[in-house]
Amino acid sequence: MSEKRIRGIAASPGIALGPVYRYEPSLVKVDVERGQDEATELARLEAALAAARQEIRLLAEEASRAVGPKEAAIFSAHELFLQDPELLQQVQERIRHQQGAASAWQAAFQHYIQQLQTAQSEYLQARVLDLEDVAQRVLRHLTGQAEESLQLSEPVVIVARELTPSAIVRCPRDRVLAFCTAQGGPTSHVAILAKALGVPAVVGLGDNLEVLRPGQLIIVDGEQGLVIAEPEAEALVHYQQQAQWLQRQASLAVETRQQPACTRDGRCYPVRANIQAPEEVAAVQAFGAEGIGLLRTEFLFLDRQQAPSEEEQREIYRALIEAVHPAPVVFRTFDIGGDKPAPYLSLPRETNPFLGVRGIRLGLKHLPLLRTQLRALLRAGAGQELRILFPMVSSYEEVETLRRLVHEVEEELRQQGQALAERVELGIMIEVPAAALLADALAEVVDFFSLGTNDLTQYVLAADRTNEGTASLADPFHPAILRLLQLTIEAAHRRQRRVEICGELASEPLALPLLLGLGIDELSMAPRAIPRCKQAIRRWTLSKAQQVAQQALHLRTAAEVRSYLHTCSPDGSSPLAE
Amino acid sequence: MSEKRIRGIAASPGIALGPVYRYEPSLVKVDVERGQDEATELARLEAALAAARQEIRLLAEEASRAVGPKEAAIFSAHELFLQDPELLQQVQERIRHQQGAASAWQAAFQHYIQQLQTAQSEYLQARVLDLEDVAQRVLRHLTGQAEESLQLSEPVVIVARELTPSAIVRCPRDRVLAFCTAQGGPTSHVAILAKALGVPAVVGLGDNLEVLRPGQLIIVDGEQGLVIAEPEAEALVHYQQQAQWLQRQASLAVETRQQPACTRDGRCYPVRANIQAPEEVAAVQAFGAEGIGLLRTEFLFLDRQQAPSEEEQREIYRALIEAVHPAPVVFRTFDIGGDKPAPYLSLPRETNPFLGVRGIRLGLKHLPLLRTQLRALLRAGAGQELRILFPMVSSYEEVETLRRLVHEVEEELRQQGQALAERVELGIMIEVPAAALLADALAEVVDFFSLGTNDLTQYVLAADRTNEGTASLADPFHPAILRLLQLTIEAAHRRQRRVEICGELASEPLALPLLLGLGIDELSMAPRAIPRCKQAIRRWTLSKAQQVAQQALHLRTAAEVRSYLHTCSPDGSSPLAE
Repeated sequence: MSEKRIRGIAASPGIALGPVYRYEPSLVKVDVERGQDEATELARLEAALAAARQEIRLLAEEASRAVGPKEAAIFSAHELFLQDPELLQQVQERIRHQQGAASAWQAAFQHYIQQLQTAQSEYLQARVLDLEDVAQRVLRHLTGQAEESLQLSEPVVIVARELTPSAIVRCPRDRVLAFCTAQGGPTSHVAILAKALGVPAVVGLGDNLEVLRPGQLIIVDGEQGLVIAEPEAEALVHYQQQAQWLQRQASLAVETRQQPACTRDGRCYPVRANIQAPEEVAAVQAFGAEGIGLLRTEFLFLDRQQAPSEEEQREIYRALIEAVHPAPVVFRTFDIGGDKPAPYLSLPRETNPFLGVRGIRLGLKHLPLLRTQLRALLRAGAGQELRILFPMVSSYEEVETLRRLVHEVEEELRQQGQALAERVELGIMIEVPAAALLADALAEVVDFFSLGTNDLTQYVLAADRTNEGTASLADPFHPAILRLLQLTIEAAHRRQRRVEICGELASEPLALPLLLGLGIDELSMAPRAIPRCKQAIRRWTLSKAQQVAQQALHLRTAAEVRSYLHTCSPDGSSPLAE
Repeated sequence: MSEKRIRGIAASPGIALGPVYRYEPSLVKVDVERGQDEATELARLEAALAAARQEIRLLAEEASRAVGPKEAAIFSAHELFLQDPELLQQVQERIRHQQGAASAWQAAFQHYIQQLQTAQSEYLQARVLDLEDVAQRVLRHLTGQAEESLQLSEPVVIVARELTPSAIVRCPRDRVLAFCTAQGGPTSHVAILAKALGVPAVVGLGDNLEVLRPGQLIIVDGEQGLVIAEPEAEALVHYQQQAQWLQRQASLAVETRQQPACTRDGRCYPVRANIQAPEEVAAVQAFGAEGIGLLRTEFLFLDRQQAPSEEEQREIYRALIEAVHPAPVVFRTFDIGGDKPAPYLSLPRETNPFLGVRGIRLGLKHLPLLRTQLRALLRAGAGQELRILFPMVSSYEEVETLRRLVHEVEEELRQQGQALAERVELGIMIEVPAAALLADALAEVVDFFSLGTNDLTQYVLAADRTNEGTASLADPFHPAILRLLQLTIEAAHRRQRRVEICGELASEPLALPLLLGLGIDELSMAPRAIPRCKQAIRRWTLSKAQQVAQQALHLRTAAEVRSYLHTCSPDGSSPLAE
């Protein structure tokens, strides 16, 4: 017996030690059966669909409470699937041909999945697992089989080939130490939900996961993407200390979340919230955010057949401003296109949507939409300071056009006697490499920058984060990204412009010394990540962070940067960089 | 009457003055007709298809002679379309239902086009015009109508809403001064073919083109994308001088194409050819290229069901090396993925193929394919120096892996007693922004860089060149690109590494002072562009080019860079930058 180390992908941070629980849910399968009369079978189908829908809604509510509305949106997609007319028509057709409802559903679903698997969209293919989850739910109701729930008598590490979103949400939170899966990438639903739940996870372990036996004690290192089976004493002691230390830090973070985030040498940082729904305002305050650093306005008006009116927008924006006053709200204008469609615009399909007409490119092609939003924003900010952020800027001309547009709209409102914002700050996302490289010129014409590290990483590495084949290349710790951040921040500061960061990198503790050291001025992130970030800031000094960042800029690979950061301690209190 | 200036997109450089010829080909249309017996109608269809195929082959040959095999590939696609089983089946079906062949063909084609127009692929949608061209060809044969040929009694400017590839190729070359179209973008077939033919073109003129009346004298400025109707004396004189000057330069370029390309202050530049087919070797020498600066190896083995064997590859590579010896060949390893599929690999569909598994990412996932190519290359170079270029590199680790692989393969060949290259130079494409930003580290581990400005521009601007909605953003004259080129070249030179450029920017006369001034060492381009480039180099001094480049680096927009360059003259001999 000797220690085995299995490398996977770090999907959710944290350390766990505990026994393996192999989760291998059995699938409901039915043989082809003749049905009763058509009306009876159709009624059975209806009832099963209704029951499944009800369950999914409850799950969505549970998920929304547990992990937030953004992540819970996964389940809205599930519900939509149950209404797919093509699928339902095929089931009904089979029932009309004397098949029983259960076998009709199963057969129609299998046909549906086959079509999906040959579909052009990798996104759809990746969602096959989700759909199987929903199909099983309906099938259970049709066959009267109860859902297997995870009966856990003790805290365990869930080990599975794959995990559906509903399995994760239904896990008894207090008995789950970590998730380990054979499949999945850094942007899989497992990763998203585990992170939101605050449970460590390592995914993409492949067939190596088979060596893990039920009951066996393992260590899950969600920081480095490592699973250790049959750990030796040294590893056990090391990881136990780390886990305890992380636990203490987590408690401390929660206790001090409403206090300011200042480094030990006295530099204080506003830490704000990224949100996309008015319901999240409660979380903004609960987690100690100083206002909203990124409001994703496009998410406020999803699933519409009509673009939102000026008045409707004004009311929502005003309510948000008042809810967090005197802290600010940074309103990002509609960031539609790419992977975010808007039903009220009929947008052409694109071969490479991430390199297509999205963000402000789309706004400038649909001027009435952008104008209406600007009117609503300027009016919502009446009597106050207003911050507007434009996404996907890639040229100086775009910024000039946008500034002109804002001034025109202001003038128009004034002439109409409307009350409007007293001062308007205009900012741009730095997410297209061209904008970062042109930061010196752009800093002349905007008030602030907001670093969108997710997209910036995709473009700088030419690697789609949502494509399993390239996701591992899209690493924001790549030295090229660090150099581009440095260049951007220096250019902004030469012109006394503020630089915020609202990309996911902001909430990665490992990245914190880099961000502080490179000179970031404000951070914005998912509300839940804020207490931990604030606590981490308090452990650093700005001067130490600057040393770390300078060092990291000279490294050659993302792996070297990560390893180096893991060895950097702000104050010697832990071997982990936190 | 006063001068009218219409702005469009500069699609092919050069200046033309001449009378307008409105090209409005009439479409063949047939009413629904009952056919004769099925066998007769099917035979008529067969005969028409065969005749159309024959015509297209002749066109392709003509195009290949006139513009080169790369551009002629447009017609291979046309031929493939005539073999589409889905389309043919539908026509046959209609004939079986007693429809006549002509009306059956027309109806089935219309249905086909409708499906295409709702297709996900913008690329396919953009090809609708091409398909209509082919469909008309078949219809003409079915109805016995002869193809309208352009009967031009004098040199004219062809003005059309749109132009099909076959219309362009069939134009009598000596009577066409320029092309102007309402539709089309910078990467449309009109642009590609006009550039290859050396005919000035302005596209995307929109409805403004309607003011141009037949016979009216107009000026077409393919340098700036401008059409001037009813020109006043001043413009006439100005453009006549420019046209004459360009003509003199063109003659001079052809006369001196075999002479070295040295600046007036004595810096000489190798100018090499980008090719993708063994047949192009003749062009390499005819146009005065010093060897092959980019061999796109993936194009040598298109349309295969089986990957090419080591021996087959070795023979082709060896023949190319010997054909241009002692000048070098730069072999770029298979650049598959993105928009370049390979039938012998079953590649998954990707949501954003340009950000997906392509180039060396694919090579490293299909190691046997890459290994076989490296074996073939090393053997082909037996006794000589060999240059290998890797596409789509984005990290230091990739280069380390590739170097290790080359050494392994060398060792393996040595042990097998195979003769192999005496010296191997390894280079990487700089086309992913990360590689440019990391150029200092990468320069330590490679022998040369080759700038792939087409892809680099797409990624830096996050704008797909093949998407009409973003093509105008993807401008290689954007200051962000210039800065990245500067950074890359400086990093390479600090390590005494050579920097080549093989992107389209290399053949743009307007870009020449930038490239020379930033310190490029070698240029490689389409064979036809070489004489003009060499002649342009001879007009500059390196020191003047350096001044121009320094100036351009401080501009804020691509438009400013272009305007500035238009005012820069190397030697005061012309108001045009050439």
